[in-house]
Amino acid sequence: MQQEVDAAPRSSVVSFGDRVAETVERKRSQIVLGIDPRVDLLPLELRAGAHASRSAAADAFARFSRGLVDAVSPYVVGVKVQLAFFEALGSDGMAAFEDTCEYARNAGLFVIADGKRGDIGSTARAYADAYVQDAEGTKPLVDALTINPYLGGDSIEPFLTACRRSGTGIYCLVKTSNGGSADVQELTLSDGRPVWHQVAELVAEWGADLSGEHGLSSVGAVVGATYPRAVGEARRLMPQAILLLPGIGAQGATPADVARAFTSGPASALVPVSRSVIYAFKVDGADWRTAAAAEAARLQREVWAASGW
Amino acid sequence: MQQEVDAAPRSSVVSFGDRVAETVERKRSQIVLGIDPRVDLLPLELRAGAHASRSAAADAFARFSRGLVDAVSPYVVGVKVQLAFFEALGSDGMAAFEDTCEYARNAGLFVIADGKRGDIGSTARAYADAYVQDAEGTKPLVDALTINPYLGGDSIEPFLTACRRSGTGIYCLVKTSNGGSADVQELTLSDGRPVWHQVAELVAEWGADLSGEHGLSSVGAVVGATYPRAVGEARRLMPQAILLLPGIGAQGATPADVARAFTSGPASALVPVSRSVIYAFKVDGADWRTAAAAEAARLQREVWAASGW
Repeated sequence: MQQEVDAAPRSSVVSFGDRVAETVERKRSQIVLGIDPRVDLLPLELRAGAHASRSAAADAFARFSRGLVDAVSPYVVGVKVQLAFFEALGSDGMAAFEDTCEYARNAGLFVIADGKRGDIGSTARAYADAYVQDAEGTKPLVDALTINPYLGGDSIEPFLTACRRSGTGIYCLVKTSNGGSADVQELTLSDGRPVWHQVAELVAEWGADLSGEHGLSSVGAVVGATYPRAVGEARRLMPQAILLLPGIGAQGATPADVARAFTSGPASALVPVSRSVIYAFKVDGADWRTAAAAEAARLQREVWAASGW
Repeated sequence: MQQEVDAAPRSSVVSFGDRVAETVERKRSQIVLGIDPRVDLLPLELRAGAHASRSAAADAFARFSRGLVDAVSPYVVGVKVQLAFFEALGSDGMAAFEDTCEYARNAGLFVIADGKRGDIGSTARAYADAYVQDAEGTKPLVDALTINPYLGGDSIEPFLTACRRSGTGIYCLVKTSNGGSADVQELTLSDGRPVWHQVAELVAEWGADLSGEHGLSSVGAVVGATYPRAVGEARRLMPQAILLLPGIGAQGATPADVARAFTSGPASALVPVSRSVIYAFKVDGADWRTAAAAEAARLQREVWAASGW
């Protein structure tokens, strides 16, 4: 992999792990709001007209995202924005994605782009440029990107360079929350371990020299809270990784299922919650912002308590 | 996975496999032009000014893509557009991506979006909507999308539904062309096979009932031409899959390395070529369009001859 002269961190760069640690401890929250907008599920005031065109839908997504950020920012440390839903609206959607990222960062929140990207080295570098690498005079678009490990170490290298230089992070898929994760991730290797254990060891290796003062690496891992036993195993295999644990709420997991993820510190795991918060208004009939804030506050308390800190 | 009433194919839908087969046989070409634009490598007439802003760069990408399509369309069956390079220019880049796709399709070429997407079912459906699913009154943006298998079968299901309904296709990563592909894909399973063999069997299974009259499935596979032995094994494991074989040219593989991929028919493999064609002008000093056309024509002949058809 080509090394650049400017790949060294600037003296002022604080590592992603340290930034997360400081924010989690200050806000006493490990919750990340998952922004997964769908036209059909939007609050009525935003849905009206959103079917008219792609740009109208994108505008509605941006307004929904801004409203959610305003409502929940006291209770969460960041947002995880699902690229697929914005991409489905083409270039209009990507403009709304950029608006959402900027708005959330201005509100003091971390932004994780949930894109699950992965490609060979020269192309992975373009993804790093797109999301987690600062360019001349501009900040990276987001603080972290989810990535897919199937292409191996040389596909990760450009992200590591970007993380080191820009104080950003990546979350590598390790054991995902869906049922089908068994098809590849749970295949049994010749030494008896599942494939995902080996991926976890690779993640630990990739992130080994990217740890900050709090002992947390810029290279994190996605592990489904829907598999509580895997959460514990992942913690053991990747002691320095910040675990991103989707699956609480609509997918059925509970705060108790993620408790064992926090043994490396209060910020050693983050819990994204999406549908149960952003569409909470459908359950209790309250204003959508009020409903989202109440649900986020409840989850903040419950996860913090479960974490034991 | 939620089934929709309209998931059945329309009576007029021709399967992706049949569309590819007819085009390959008519044009006597198995070449796909890889469009991987980088500002620093653009021809001088396009590079001038492209550094000024993201929208200027995106405009240069669109003009480069259009010129390439005009130049090479007699010699290739399609284009493979690398999303990462367009995404790196944000919403401006995505608009240029859409322009490129539309222009290539109007020139009678297949468009493969090289995005290597993959996510849990509900999100994968948004990716299917974004790329390979037709909506009310509109065609899908592209003819096929590259996808990543790490999340397993339920992450593929929404794409299968879209392919069946819209006559589109997917290419699943199986054994990638880079050196790091060994890290996960070559891990040895308890039965002695590498992980990628099992993925190949899954791909064959996912595509089994999506074969057209030519015996080729809408579910294809990406296999690196840089591993000629793997190409032969992949052919045996996935007899109905259209193999997409990157690695010829800048990555070092030759037409002879892909010969064994074509035993399931002249259209049973496609060969993407990118840097060696789109930047051919840097080698011979000719006009960039003339140089690209000459190199594409040469590769068309060599691969067709190597294929034995």
